[in-house]
Amino acid sequence: MKVVKFGGSSLASAEQIQKVFDIIKNDSERRIVVVSAPGKRMKDDVKVTDALIAYYQAYKHQEDLSVHQEWIIERYRIICTELNLDDSVITDIQKNILSLALLPVENRFTYDTFLAAGENNNAKLIAEYFKVKGLNSRYVHPQDAGIIVTSDPSNAQLLKTSYKKIKYLTELDEILIVPGFFGVTEQGNVCTFSRGGSDITGSILAAGIKADVYENFTDVDGIFAAHPGIIRNPHAIVELTYREMRELAYSGFSVLHDEALVPAYRAHVPLIIKNTNNPDYPGTRIVTKRSTKGAPVVGIASSSGFSSIYINKYLMNREVGFGRRVLSALENLGIRFEHMPTGIDDMSVIVRSKYMNKQQEKALIDNLTESLHPDELYVEHDFSIIMLVGEDMKEHAGVAARASRALAVHGISIAMISQGASEVSLMFIVKEKDEKEALRAIYDEFFFEI
Amino acid sequence: MKVVKFGGSSLASAEQIQKVFDIIKNDSERRIVVVSAPGKRMKDDVKVTDALIAYYQAYKHQEDLSVHQEWIIERYRIICTELNLDDSVITDIQKNILSLALLPVENRFTYDTFLAAGENNNAKLIAEYFKVKGLNSRYVHPQDAGIIVTSDPSNAQLLKTSYKKIKYLTELDEILIVPGFFGVTEQGNVCTFSRGGSDITGSILAAGIKADVYENFTDVDGIFAAHPGIIRNPHAIVELTYREMRELAYSGFSVLHDEALVPAYRAHVPLIIKNTNNPDYPGTRIVTKRSTKGAPVVGIASSSGFSSIYINKYLMNREVGFGRRVLSALENLGIRFEHMPTGIDDMSVIVRSKYMNKQQEKALIDNLTESLHPDELYVEHDFSIIMLVGEDMKEHAGVAARASRALAVHGISIAMISQGASEVSLMFIVKEKDEKEALRAIYDEFFFEI
Repeated sequence: MKVVKFGGSSLASAEQIQKVFDIIKNDSERRIVVVSAPGKRMKDDVKVTDALIAYYQAYKHQEDLSVHQEWIIERYRIICTELNLDDSVITDIQKNILSLALLPVENRFTYDTFLAAGENNNAKLIAEYFKVKGLNSRYVHPQDAGIIVTSDPSNAQLLKTSYKKIKYLTELDEILIVPGFFGVTEQGNVCTFSRGGSDITGSILAAGIKADVYENFTDVDGIFAAHPGIIRNPHAIVELTYREMRELAYSGFSVLHDEALVPAYRAHVPLIIKNTNNPDYPGTRIVTKRSTKGAPVVGIASSSGFSSIYINKYLMNREVGFGRRVLSALENLGIRFEHMPTGIDDMSVIVRSKYMNKQQEKALIDNLTESLHPDELYVEHDFSIIMLVGEDMKEHAGVAARASRALAVHGISIAMISQGASEVSLMFIVKEKDEKEALRAIYDEFFFEI
Repeated sequence: MKVVKFGGSSLASAEQIQKVFDIIKNDSERRIVVVSAPGKRMKDDVKVTDALIAYYQAYKHQEDLSVHQEWIIERYRIICTELNLDDSVITDIQKNILSLALLPVENRFTYDTFLAAGENNNAKLIAEYFKVKGLNSRYVHPQDAGIIVTSDPSNAQLLKTSYKKIKYLTELDEILIVPGFFGVTEQGNVCTFSRGGSDITGSILAAGIKADVYENFTDVDGIFAAHPGIIRNPHAIVELTYREMRELAYSGFSVLHDEALVPAYRAHVPLIIKNTNNPDYPGTRIVTKRSTKGAPVVGIASSSGFSSIYINKYLMNREVGFGRRVLSALENLGIRFEHMPTGIDDMSVIVRSKYMNKQQEKALIDNLTESLHPDELYVEHDFSIIMLVGEDMKEHAGVAARASRALAVHGISIAMISQGASEVSLMFIVKEKDEKEALRAIYDEFFFEI
């Protein structure tokens, strides 16, 4: 049994929804379908969810609502018309969109209810279309699907007891169409997830029914071994472990929101990233444990915007608690640290520059100067990380040698290397200006001959 | 003006003291001479300081003292006789050694006074010998040299105000012979330094008089680029910075106790390590800033006995304070950490195995399991670090590539690499069984052709 999730661009138009229908029809294992709100049809289009946010703002500030209401309803109307759906479908959607403006403005779940309407109406529309086309399908509200969440508006957490209720979905015969992005509290309020939108609903349902696989349909063929904006025609990755995906996501790959995947990851459900517009392409399979032995490096990511706080003090190493005191100073100022490589008498703390503003930086320097009396203390900006990822890297002794030689050959100086801290990655830190050339040099070293 | 310090083996016999005399006579800049107690004359000999400890134990437990007293006095008598010194010298030493047993046992400075007698009597003896040989020299008690310390028996710290008093030594005409290893409290009690013995006295005096150089005479020609027990005939290092020496000392080189060097380091006094038995050899010069550009790697050290605590948790990276909590857990258990390389969802904490016993290890695992709920947590033992050291390494992009390739060629797997955390070193962690081969492979790579 498969849980299948479609993103906004896969459901942005009648044409796309017809593709989705074919995808579901062609595999009888695809039994639970999680849908997003209609996304962009072209580059400068507006997503329905963003239109709903604007609608909510107008409603909250008591501005004219009709322009927002009409735009949203029109988006659905176009789809209904092109799909030849009965008028009753758009009439119901219209009623729902208009009724949002009747909600009490002071209720803390109202904003979430506005937003959830994008997915909810789309799910109803799609279920109706599937039925018309002869598929035994049924719309299921998250409440009926058992997605019961905490009362944290825009930041709902699934209640652990929900999994029991979700499990009963396997006993239903129909193809179930479930709107993504929101759950319902025990008191019956609509409450959305923080981020990752519909991905998390799919992940929860896949974990709850212990699906054989969780298929996540997007508009790309899968995950590439390097960023297509930097590397021309990069290799597509066939299989990836969750750990590898995490490392790549951290270092700049943006495919799925990784927090969304926790339920599927913990339930050991494999995830497949597929393309709605090219459904026969196998896509990228993300698994807990890889079945095949692969090349040492499966992907190379890069990410800019890092800063380094360098601290040196003669005999630092003898001062018990030095490292902990540095980290406490950061924590007290609300600065998140990413890495803390240490020498004997020196350490660098690597942070994402966006998480340390000028005030925080100054306060940190003052604080560390006063409390630690370092011999040297300075902050450097504009670093990028280059991350080589691969579960089998450990068994290939030469990876670090090959990668660092490739950088040396191109005259790129390495600010830092860290290998072995993670079992699945090797990290280089270079100056931002060298990032692209460094990525290309390393990509060529590991993928060129293949 | 130079401060010159001689270790115990340089002063163990009349023959050695004659060499010391020649060294002082041959350079009129050598004006302050710090001496240790007589050390070992051969492999199984007993150092006078160790004999004094045994004497103190016997005295404290009211055992027979004569055997200890006689052995110690005899050590000095042999030296006096061979140097043809007047009987009054050994008579004074004898009186002093016997008088120790009259000290009040309950006084907290008595132990330190016993120990300091080794250096103190030797300084008197040597000053007398120098005078007999026609050198304008004079014994100076640490109190008169201005070495005034805190009242912490066996762990004295210099009072900062002492430096002013020390400075007046430059105004004296004679060659000053100062016993190392101890100072005097403001109340006049003898109080010894914690470790590093006479090295710290020399370092304090060199800093106090702003010496042009601090010459430290030992029984080796200087510092080698790698351990002579592993590498046959390793290159001698001509010049080294204090930071490089710290890195090498940390990773297994044992020449001087590095805490002892702090005063000289902070006062920017260059240190030269020389051989009493080969005084014309230039030795190794240790400076704040190197005058010449050298090879990228000046020394390679290795050290065994490290353990790694590996922690993995999906999305660890998102948990603010994770790293700090791990370090606090170690600190609470009194486990000192050496390094903490981090991946995205994993971190390793490297500790010296001797600082984490079985109970501490178990408590740590229990504690971390309970407080952090990691996905994986395990401890591995028997690691060694290989440390490549050199201030100019940063400017040579290929060092990491060459070193890691050398290891790969020898089939040695690298558990971890850390470069750039320290500005002057590159660290590899390998399994202990591979340590020697790894050191040889890297040494050959960087020093073989030279």
